[in-house]
Amino acid sequence: MTPRALFFDIFGTVVDWRSGVAREARALLEPLGYKLDGLAFADAWRAEYQPGMEEVRSGRIPFSKLDVMHRRMLERIRPRFGLERLAEDKARELTLAWHRLDAWSDVASGLARLHKRYLLAPVSNGNISLMVDLARRNAFPWDAILGAEIAGDYKPKPRVYLAAAEALDLAPRDCMMVAAHSYDLKAAAECGLATAHVARPDEKGPGSGEKAPIVPVDLAVKTFMELADRLAC
Amino acid sequence: MTPRALFFDIFGTVVDWRSGVAREARALLEPLGYKLDGLAFADAWRAEYQPGMEEVRSGRIPFSKLDVMHRRMLERIRPRFGLERLAEDKARELTLAWHRLDAWSDVASGLARLHKRYLLAPVSNGNISLMVDLARRNAFPWDAILGAEIAGDYKPKPRVYLAAAEALDLAPRDCMMVAAHSYDLKAAAECGLATAHVARPDEKGPGSGEKAPIVPVDLAVKTFMELADRLAC
Repeated sequence: MTPRALFFDIFGTVVDWRSGVAREARALLEPLGYKLDGLAFADAWRAEYQPGMEEVRSGRIPFSKLDVMHRRMLERIRPRFGLERLAEDKARELTLAWHRLDAWSDVASGLARLHKRYLLAPVSNGNISLMVDLARRNAFPWDAILGAEIAGDYKPKPRVYLAAAEALDLAPRDCMMVAAHSYDLKAAAECGLATAHVARPDEKGPGSGEKAPIVPVDLAVKTFMELADRLAC
Repeated sequence: MTPRALFFDIFGTVVDWRSGVAREARALLEPLGYKLDGLAFADAWRAEYQPGMEEVRSGRIPFSKLDVMHRRMLERIRPRFGLERLAEDKARELTLAWHRLDAWSDVASGLARLHKRYLLAPVSNGNISLMVDLARRNAFPWDAILGAEIAGDYKPKPRVYLAAAEALDLAPRDCMMVAAHSYDLKAAAECGLATAHVARPDEKGPGSGEKAPIVPVDLAVKTFMELADRLAC
Protein backbone atom coordinates (compact mmCIF):
# COMPACT_ATOMS: atom_id res chain seq x y z
CA MET A 1 0.00 0.00 0.00
CA THR A 2 1.90 3.02 -1.27
CA PRO A 3 -0.57 5.60 -2.55
CA ARG A 4 0.60 8.47 -4.72
CA ALA A 5 -2.20 10.82 -3.74
CA LEU A 6 -4.14 11.38 -0.54
CA PHE A 7 -7.73 12.60 -0.79
CA PHE A 8 -9.21 14.32 2.22
CA ASP A 9 -12.72 14.64 3.47
CA ILE A 10 -12.93 18.12 4.94
CA PHE A 11 -15.92 18.74 7.23
CA GLY A 12 -15.26 16.87 10.44
CA THR A 13 -12.06 15.26 9.20
CA VAL A 14 -9.89 18.31 8.55
CA VAL A 15 -11.93 21.17 10.01
CA ASP A 16 -14.05 21.39 13.14
CA TRP A 17 -17.35 22.50 11.63
CA ARG A 18 -19.32 22.39 14.89
CA SER A 19 -17.43 24.92 17.00
CA GLY A 20 -16.70 27.03 13.92
CA VAL A 21 -20.28 27.33 12.72
CA ALA A 22 -21.40 28.01 16.29
CA ARG A 23 -18.81 30.78 16.67
CA GLU A 24 -19.50 32.39 13.28
CA ALA A 25 -23.27 32.27 13.72
CA ARG A 26 -23.12 33.91 17.13
CA ALA A 27 -20.65 36.52 15.89
CA LEU A 28 -23.05 37.47 13.14
CA LEU A 29 -26.38 37.17 14.94
CA GLU A 30 -25.75 38.44 18.45
CA PRO A 31 -24.91 42.00 17.35
CA LEU A 32 -28.28 41.94 15.58
CA GLY A 33 -30.02 41.20 18.87
CA TYR A 34 -30.54 37.46 18.44
CA LYS A 35 -29.85 35.09 21.29
CA LEU A 36 -28.51 31.84 19.91
CA ASP A 37 -27.40 28.48 21.24
CA GLY A 38 -24.55 28.30 18.73
CA LEU A 39 -23.79 24.61 19.11
CA ALA A 40 -27.43 23.59 18.89
CA PHE A 41 -27.73 25.76 15.78
CA ALA A 42 -24.65 24.14 14.21
CA ASP A 43 -25.98 20.68 15.03
CA ALA A 44 -29.39 21.48 13.57
CA TRP A 45 -27.85 22.84 10.37
CA ARG A 46 -25.59 19.84 9.97
CA ALA A 47 -28.52 17.49 10.64
CA GLU A 48 -30.01 18.75 7.37
CA TYR A 49 -26.85 17.78 5.52
CA GLN A 50 -27.44 14.16 4.54
CA PRO A 51 -31.12 14.70 3.62
CA GLY A 52 -30.04 17.69 1.53
CA MET A 53 -27.28 15.75 -0.21
CA GLU A 54 -29.69 12.90 -0.87
CA GLU A 55 -31.94 15.18 -2.89
CA VAL A 56 -29.11 15.63 -5.38
CA ARG A 57 -27.70 12.11 -5.19
CA SER A 58 -31.11 10.64 -5.90
CA GLY A 59 -31.60 12.93 -8.88
CA ARG A 60 -34.67 14.66 -7.39
CA ILE A 61 -32.96 18.04 -7.90
CA PRO A 62 -30.02 18.93 -10.16
CA PHE A 63 -26.52 19.31 -8.78
CA SER A 64 -25.75 22.67 -7.26
CA LYS A 65 -22.82 23.86 -5.18
CA LEU A 66 -22.73 23.07 -1.47
CA ASP A 67 -23.06 26.79 -0.72
CA VAL A 68 -26.45 26.70 -2.41
CA MET A 69 -27.38 23.52 -0.58
CA HIS A 70 -26.25 25.00 2.75
CA ARG A 71 -28.59 27.91 2.14
CA ARG A 72 -31.47 25.54 1.43
CA MET A 73 -30.68 23.68 4.64
CA LEU A 74 -30.53 26.96 6.54
CA GLU A 75 -34.01 27.88 5.30
CA ARG A 76 -35.36 24.69 6.87
CA ILE A 77 -34.02 25.47 10.34
CA ARG A 78 -34.63 29.22 10.47
CA PRO A 79 -38.07 28.98 12.13
CA ARG A 80 -36.68 26.76 14.89
CA PHE A 81 -34.15 29.45 15.83
CA GLY A 82 -36.38 32.48 15.41
CA LEU A 83 -34.55 33.61 12.28
CA GLU A 84 -37.55 33.96 9.97
CA ARG A 85 -37.08 37.70 9.59
CA LEU A 86 -33.29 37.77 9.21
CA ALA A 87 -32.40 40.14 6.34
CA GLU A 88 -31.41 38.55 3.05
CA ASP A 89 -27.84 39.91 3.10
CA LYS A 90 -27.34 38.53 6.60
CA ALA A 91 -28.73 35.13 5.64
CA ARG A 92 -26.29 35.09 2.76
CA GLU A 93 -23.41 36.02 5.05
CA LEU A 94 -24.49 33.41 7.57
CA THR A 95 -24.34 30.74 4.87
CA LEU A 96 -20.66 31.58 4.43
CA ALA A 97 -19.96 30.57 8.05
CA TRP A 98 -18.84 27.27 6.51
CA HIS A 99 -16.03 29.16 4.72
CA ARG A 100 -14.55 30.29 8.03
CA LEU A 101 -13.77 27.11 9.92
CA ASP A 102 -10.56 26.10 11.63
CA ALA A 103 -8.60 22.90 11.26
CA TRP A 104 -8.22 20.41 14.10
CA SER A 105 -4.94 21.07 15.89
CA ASP A 106 -3.05 18.11 14.41
CA VAL A 107 -3.79 18.97 10.78
CA ALA A 108 -1.20 21.64 9.92
CA SER A 109 1.85 19.68 11.00
CA GLY A 110 0.49 16.42 9.61
CA LEU A 111 -0.26 17.88 6.19
CA ALA A 112 3.14 19.57 6.03
CA ARG A 113 4.82 16.18 6.40
CA LEU A 114 2.44 14.38 4.05
CA HIS A 115 2.89 17.09 1.41
CA LYS A 116 6.57 16.18 1.03
CA ARG A 117 5.76 12.73 -0.24
CA TYR A 118 2.21 12.68 -1.61
CA LEU A 119 -0.10 14.69 -3.79
CA LEU A 120 -2.80 16.11 -1.52
CA ALA A 121 -6.29 17.20 -2.48
CA PRO A 122 -9.62 17.71 -0.78
CA VAL A 123 -12.27 15.32 -2.06
CA SER A 124 -15.11 16.96 -0.25
CA ASN A 125 -18.70 17.76 -1.01
CA GLY A 126 -17.73 21.41 -0.54
CA ASN A 127 -17.54 23.62 -3.61
CA ILE A 128 -14.29 24.99 -4.99
CA SER A 129 -14.64 28.49 -3.52
CA LEU A 130 -15.43 27.04 -0.12
CA MET A 131 -12.36 24.79 -0.28
CA VAL A 132 -10.23 27.75 -1.43
CA ASP A 133 -11.38 29.90 1.49
CA LEU A 134 -10.71 27.15 4.04
CA ALA A 135 -7.30 26.51 2.47
CA ARG A 136 -6.34 30.18 2.60
CA ARG A 137 -7.50 30.50 6.20
CA ASN A 138 -5.63 27.39 7.35
CA ALA A 139 -2.74 27.30 4.83
CA PHE A 140 -3.63 23.83 3.58
CA PRO A 141 -0.98 22.75 1.03
CA TRP A 142 -3.38 21.30 -1.56
CA ASP A 143 -2.10 20.39 -5.00
CA ALA A 144 -5.58 20.77 -6.48
CA ILE A 145 -9.16 21.18 -5.36
CA LEU A 146 -11.04 18.04 -6.34
CA GLY A 147 -14.39 16.71 -5.11
CA ALA A 148 -18.08 17.19 -5.74
CA GLU A 149 -17.95 20.29 -7.92
CA ILE A 150 -15.69 18.70 -10.52
CA ALA A 151 -17.69 15.47 -10.38
CA GLY A 152 -21.13 17.09 -10.54
CA ASP A 153 -22.47 14.81 -7.81
CA TYR A 154 -22.09 14.27 -4.08
CA LYS A 155 -20.27 11.69 -2.00
CA PRO A 156 -20.68 8.85 -1.37
CA LYS A 157 -21.64 8.47 -5.06
CA PRO A 158 -18.79 6.60 -6.83
CA ARG A 159 -18.38 9.31 -9.47
CA VAL A 160 -16.85 11.71 -6.93
CA TYR A 161 -14.00 9.38 -5.95
CA LEU A 162 -13.40 8.21 -9.51
CA ALA A 163 -13.40 11.73 -10.97
CA ALA A 164 -10.76 12.73 -8.42
CA ALA A 165 -8.48 9.84 -9.37
CA GLU A 166 -9.02 10.53 -13.08
CA ALA A 167 -8.17 14.22 -12.63
CA LEU A 168 -4.73 13.19 -11.38
CA ASP A 169 -4.37 10.43 -14.01
CA LEU A 170 -4.12 7.86 -11.25
CA ALA A 171 -5.72 4.47 -10.85
CA PRO A 172 -8.08 4.35 -7.84
CA ARG A 173 -5.69 1.97 -6.05
CA ASP A 174 -3.00 4.68 -6.17
CA CYS A 175 -5.23 7.04 -4.20
CA MET A 176 -6.08 6.92 -0.51
CA MET A 177 -9.23 8.48 0.91
CA VAL A 178 -8.74 9.96 4.38
CA ALA A 179 -11.90 10.54 6.39
CA ALA A 180 -13.41 10.46 9.86
CA HIS A 181 -16.60 8.84 8.52
CA SER A 182 -16.96 5.16 7.78
CA TYR A 183 -19.66 5.67 5.11
CA ASP A 184 -17.23 7.80 3.10
CA LEU A 185 -14.44 5.22 3.38
CA LYS A 186 -16.75 2.33 2.53
CA ALA A 187 -17.77 4.06 -0.69
CA ALA A 188 -14.16 4.94 -1.55
CA ALA A 189 -13.06 1.35 -0.96
CA GLU A 190 -15.84 0.09 -3.22
CA CYS A 191 -14.32 2.28 -5.95
CA GLY A 192 -10.92 0.67 -5.39
CA LEU A 193 -9.26 3.42 -3.35
CA ALA A 194 -7.16 2.72 -0.29
CA THR A 195 -8.65 4.12 2.90
CA ALA A 196 -7.50 5.74 6.14
CA HIS A 197 -9.79 6.49 9.05
CA VAL A 198 -8.92 9.37 11.34
CA ALA A 199 -10.75 9.35 14.65
CA ARG A 200 -12.58 12.58 15.45
CA PRO A 201 -14.40 11.46 18.58
CA ASP A 202 -15.69 14.94 19.38
CA GLU A 203 -16.78 15.96 15.89
CA LYS A 204 -20.48 16.16 16.68
CA GLY A 205 -20.01 17.12 20.32
CA PRO A 206 -18.02 15.50 23.13
CA GLY A 207 -17.85 11.76 22.45
CA SER A 208 -20.24 12.01 19.51
CA GLY A 209 -17.87 11.35 16.62
CA GLU A 210 -16.45 8.08 15.29
CA LYS A 211 -13.82 6.78 17.70
CA ALA A 212 -12.88 4.04 15.27
CA PRO A 213 -14.01 2.84 11.84
CA ILE A 214 -17.00 0.53 11.64
CA VAL A 215 -15.94 -0.76 8.22
CA PRO A 216 -12.70 -2.40 7.06
CA VAL A 217 -10.00 0.20 6.28
CA ASP A 218 -6.35 0.07 5.34
CA LEU A 219 -5.27 2.36 8.15
CA ALA A 220 -6.93 3.66 11.29
CA VAL A 221 -5.22 6.53 13.12
CA LYS A 222 -5.95 9.07 15.82
CA THR A 223 -4.27 12.11 14.24
CA PHE A 224 -2.75 13.39 11.00
CA MET A 225 0.67 13.09 12.65
CA GLU A 226 0.05 9.39 13.15
CA LEU A 227 -1.07 9.17 9.53
CA ALA A 228 2.25 10.70 8.47
CA ASP A 229 4.09 8.23 10.71
CA ARG A 230 2.24 5.28 9.20
CA LEU A 231 2.79 6.53 5.67
CA ALA A 232 6.50 6.88 6.40
CA CYS A 233 7.01 10.58 5.96
CA MET B 1 -9.55 47.97 -11.37
CA THR B 2 -8.97 45.88 -8.26
CA PRO B 3 -9.40 42.22 -9.12
CA ARG B 4 -9.85 39.62 -6.41
CA ALA B 5 -8.44 36.75 -8.43
CA LEU B 6 -5.72 36.47 -11.05
CA PHE B 7 -6.03 33.79 -13.72
CA PHE B 8 -2.88 32.69 -15.49
CA ASP B 9 -2.26 31.29 -18.89
CA ILE B 10 0.55 28.77 -18.44
CA PHE B 11 2.31 27.70 -21.64
CA GLY B 12 4.41 30.61 -22.78
CA THR B 13 3.17 32.97 -20.07
CA VAL B 14 4.32 31.16 -16.92
CA VAL B 15 6.52 28.36 -18.28
CA ASP B 16 9.00 28.27 -21.14
CA TRP B 17 7.60 25.38 -23.17
CA ARG B 18 10.06 25.68 -26.05
CA SER B 19 13.36 25.11 -24.26
CA GLY B 20 11.71 22.65 -21.87
CA VAL B 21 10.17 20.42 -24.51
CA ALA B 22 13.41 20.53 -26.49
CA ARG B 23 15.42 19.48 -23.42
CA GLU B 24 13.02 16.73 -22.34
CA ALA B 25 12.70 15.31 -25.85
CA ARG B 26 16.44 15.12 -26.34
CA ALA B 27 16.94 13.63 -22.87
CA LEU B 28 14.51 10.87 -23.73
CA LEU B 29 15.39 10.25 -27.38
CA GLU B 30 19.15 10.62 -27.61
CA PRO B 31 19.90 7.65 -25.32
CA LEU B 32 17.71 5.63 -27.70
CA GLY B 33 19.98 6.57 -30.60
CA TYR B 34 17.88 9.33 -32.13
CA LYS B 35 19.46 12.55 -33.28
CA LEU B 36 17.03 15.38 -32.70
CA ASP B 37 16.91 19.12 -33.29
CA GLY B 38 15.12 19.71 -30.00
CA LEU B 39 13.97 23.26 -30.67
CA ALA B 40 12.68 22.41 -34.14
CA PHE B 41 10.86 19.46 -32.63
CA ALA B 42 9.29 21.66 -29.91
CA ASP B 43 8.26 24.23 -32.51
CA ALA B 44 6.72 21.57 -34.75
CA TRP B 45 4.78 20.04 -31.84
CA ARG B 46 3.50 23.43 -30.72
CA ALA B 47 2.52 24.31 -34.31
CA GLU B 48 -0.05 21.51 -34.08
CA TYR B 49 -1.57 23.12 -30.98
CA GLN B 50 -4.12 25.54 -32.36
CA PRO B 51 -5.34 23.17 -35.11
CA GLY B 52 -5.67 20.45 -32.46
CA MET B 53 -7.59 22.71 -30.07
CA GLU B 54 -9.83 23.81 -32.90
CA GLU B 55 -11.00 20.25 -33.45
CA VAL B 56 -12.49 20.30 -29.95
CA ARG B 57 -13.63 23.92 -29.94
CA SER B 58 -15.51 23.41 -33.19
CA GLY B 59 -17.21 20.30 -31.84
CA ARG B 60 -15.66 17.99 -34.46
CA ILE B 61 -14.32 15.77 -31.67
CA PRO B 62 -15.41 15.58 -28.02
CA PHE B 63 -13.37 17.26 -25.30
CA SER B 64 -10.45 15.28 -24.02
CA LYS B 65 -7.56 16.28 -21.77
CA LEU B 66 -4.65 18.21 -23.21
CA ASP B 67 -2.39 15.21 -22.54
CA VAL B 68 -4.53 13.23 -24.96
CA MET B 69 -4.48 16.09 -27.46
CA HIS B 70 -0.69 16.43 -27.12
CA ARG B 71 -0.36 12.77 -27.99
CA ARG B 72 -2.54 13.24 -31.08
CA MET B 73 -0.38 16.20 -32.10
CA LEU B 74 2.76 14.16 -31.53
CA GLU B 75 1.46 11.46 -33.86
CA ARG B 76 1.19 14.02 -36.65
CA ILE B 77 4.83 15.11 -36.40
CA ARG B 78 6.49 11.75 -35.73
CA PRO B 79 7.25 10.98 -39.38
CA ARG B 80 8.93 14.35 -39.84
CA PHE B 81 11.39 13.53 -37.06
CA GLY B 82 11.97 9.88 -37.87
CA LEU B 83 10.05 8.74 -34.81
CA GLU B 84 7.63 6.35 -36.52
CA ARG B 85 9.02 3.31 -34.74
CA LEU B 86 9.39 4.80 -31.28
CA ALA B 87 8.06 2.27 -28.74
CA GLU B 88 4.64 2.95 -27.26
CA ASP B 89 5.90 3.42 -23.70
CA LYS B 90 8.47 5.93 -24.92
CA ALA B 91 5.87 7.84 -26.92
CA ARG B 92 3.75 8.01 -23.80
CA GLU B 93 6.70 9.26 -21.76
CA LEU B 94 7.57 11.80 -24.45
CA THR B 95 4.05 13.20 -24.27
CA LEU B 96 4.68 13.97 -20.60
CA ALA B 97 7.54 16.32 -21.56
CA TRP B 98 4.92 19.06 -21.14
CA HIS B 99 4.67 18.13 -17.43
CA ARG B 100 8.35 18.92 -16.88
CA LEU B 101 8.74 22.55 -17.90
CA ASP B 102 10.39 25.38 -15.99
CA ALA B 103 8.98 28.81 -15.21
CA TRP B 104 10.44 31.99 -16.66
CA SER B 105 12.89 33.48 -14.17
CA ASP B 106 10.60 36.29 -12.97
CA VAL B 107 7.66 34.04 -12.12
CA ALA B 108 8.54 32.68 -8.66
CA SER B 109 9.16 36.01 -6.99
CA GLY B 110 6.26 37.68 -8.78
CA LEU B 111 3.76 35.00 -7.80
CA ALA B 112 4.96 35.04 -4.20
CA ARG B 113 4.08 38.72 -3.97
CA LEU B 114 0.80 38.42 -5.84
CA HIS B 115 -0.23 35.47 -3.65
CA LYS B 116 -0.33 37.72 -0.60
CA ARG B 117 -3.12 39.82 -2.01
CA TYR B 118 -4.96 37.84 -4.68
CA LEU B 119 -6.39 34.43 -5.30
CA LEU B 120 -4.26 32.79 -7.97
CA ALA B 121 -5.22 30.03 -10.36
CA PRO B 122 -4.08 28.70 -13.70
CA VAL B 123 -6.74 29.10 -16.38
CA SER B 124 -4.92 27.06 -18.95
CA ASN B 125 -5.88 24.56 -21.59
CA GLY B 126 -3.68 22.11 -19.69
CA ASN B 127 -5.37 19.33 -17.75
CA ILE B 128 -5.39 19.17 -13.96
CA SER B 129 -2.62 16.57 -13.60
CA LEU B 130 -0.41 18.57 -15.95
CA MET B 131 -1.00 21.74 -13.93
CA VAL B 132 -0.32 19.83 -10.70
CA ASP B 133 2.99 18.49 -11.99
CA LEU B 134 4.12 21.93 -13.18
CA ALA B 135 3.08 23.46 -9.86
CA ARG B 136 4.99 20.86 -7.85
CA ARG B 137 8.08 21.27 -10.00
CA ASN B 138 8.04 25.06 -9.77
CA ALA B 139 6.30 25.58 -6.39
CA PHE B 140 3.52 27.68 -7.88
CA PRO B 141 1.25 28.90 -5.05
CA TRP B 142 -2.08 28.21 -6.76
CA ASP B 143 -5.28 28.38 -4.75
CA ALA B 144 -7.03 26.05 -7.18
CA ILE B 145 -6.51 24.48 -10.58
CA LEU B 146 -9.09 25.95 -12.94
CA GLY B 147 -9.18 25.98 -16.73
CA ALA B 148 -10.18 23.75 -19.62
CA GLU B 149 -10.69 20.50 -17.73
CA ILE B 150 -13.27 21.97 -15.37
CA ALA B 151 -14.94 23.82 -18.26
CA GLY B 152 -14.98 20.90 -20.68
CA ASP B 153 -13.82 23.11 -23.54
CA TYR B 154 -10.72 24.96 -24.68
CA LYS B 155 -9.71 28.61 -24.63
CA PRO B 156 -10.49 31.00 -26.16
CA LYS B 157 -14.06 29.69 -25.86
CA PRO B 158 -15.94 31.90 -23.34
CA ARG B 159 -16.99 28.95 -21.20
CA VAL B 160 -13.43 28.46 -19.93
CA TYR B 161 -13.10 32.00 -18.52
CA LEU B 162 -16.63 32.06 -17.17
CA ALA B 163 -16.35 28.63 -15.51
CA ALA B 164 -13.21 29.81 -13.72
CA ALA B 165 -14.93 32.92 -12.35
CA GLU B 166 -17.97 30.88 -11.33
CA ALA B 167 -15.80 28.33 -9.53
CA LEU B 168 -14.55 31.12 -7.26
CA ASP B 169 -18.01 32.71 -6.95
CA LEU B 170 -16.68 35.87 -8.53
CA ALA B 171 -18.11 38.13 -11.20
CA PRO B 172 -15.94 38.19 -14.35
CA ARG B 173 -14.99 41.82 -13.63
CA ASP B 174 -13.42 40.70 -10.34
CA CYS B 175 -11.04 38.39 -12.19
CA MET B 176 -8.00 39.34 -14.24
CA MET B 177 -6.62 37.12 -16.98
CA VAL B 178 -2.83 37.25 -17.25
CA ALA B 179 -1.36 36.03 -20.52
CA ALA B 180 1.39 36.57 -23.07
CA HIS B 181 -1.06 36.09 -25.95
CA SER B 182 -3.42 38.75 -27.23
CA TYR B 183 -6.01 36.24 -28.54
CA ASP B 184 -6.40 34.88 -25.00
CA LEU B 185 -6.81 38.35 -23.49
CA LYS B 186 -9.23 39.46 -26.19
CA ALA B 187 -11.49 36.51 -25.42
CA ALA B 188 -11.22 37.08 -21.66
CA ALA B 189 -12.09 40.76 -22.07
CA GLU B 190 -15.13 39.84 -24.16
CA CYS B 191 -16.30 37.76 -21.16
CA GLY B 192 -15.90 40.80 -18.90
CA LEU B 193 -12.61 39.92 -17.23
CA ALA B 194 -9.85 42.44 -16.65
CA THR B 195 -6.69 41.67 -18.60
CA ALA B 196 -2.93 41.91 -18.15
CA HIS B 197 -0.44 41.23 -20.92
CA VAL B 198 3.01 39.96 -19.99
CA ALA B 199 5.58 40.28 -22.74
CA ARG B 200 7.38 37.04 -23.56
CA PRO B 201 9.34 38.20 -26.59
CA ASP B 202 11.35 34.98 -26.85
CA GLU B 203 8.54 32.50 -26.28
CA LYS B 204 8.69 30.95 -29.74
CA GLY B 205 12.38 31.57 -30.26
CA PRO B 206 14.50 34.73 -30.00
CA GLY B 207 12.29 37.70 -30.83
CA SER B 208 9.38 35.46 -31.86
CA GLY B 209 6.95 36.11 -29.01
CA GLU B 210 4.58 39.02 -28.38
CA LYS B 211 6.59 42.07 -27.32
CA ALA B 212 3.40 43.97 -26.59
CA PRO B 213 -0.33 43.33 -26.79
CA ILE B 214 -2.07 43.86 -30.12
CA VAL B 215 -5.47 44.27 -28.45
CA PRO B 216 -6.63 46.69 -25.74
CA VAL B 217 -5.69 45.46 -22.25
CA ASP B 218 -5.93 46.88 -18.74
CA LEU B 219 -2.26 46.37 -18.01
CA ALA B 220 0.80 45.61 -20.12
CA VAL B 221 3.96 44.57 -18.29
CA LYS B 222 7.34 43.01 -19.01
CA THR B 223 7.58 40.71 -15.99
CA PHE B 224 5.58 39.24 -13.12
CA MET B 225 7.49 41.54 -10.78
CA GLU B 226 6.19 44.52 -12.71
CA LEU B 227 2.70 43.01 -12.54
CA ALA B 228 3.04 42.85 -8.75
CA ASP B 229 4.24 46.47 -8.71
CA ARG B 230 1.28 47.59 -10.80
CA LEU B 231 -1.18 45.63 -8.69
CA ALA B 232 0.27 47.21 -5.56
CA CYS B 233 1.61 44.22 -3.74
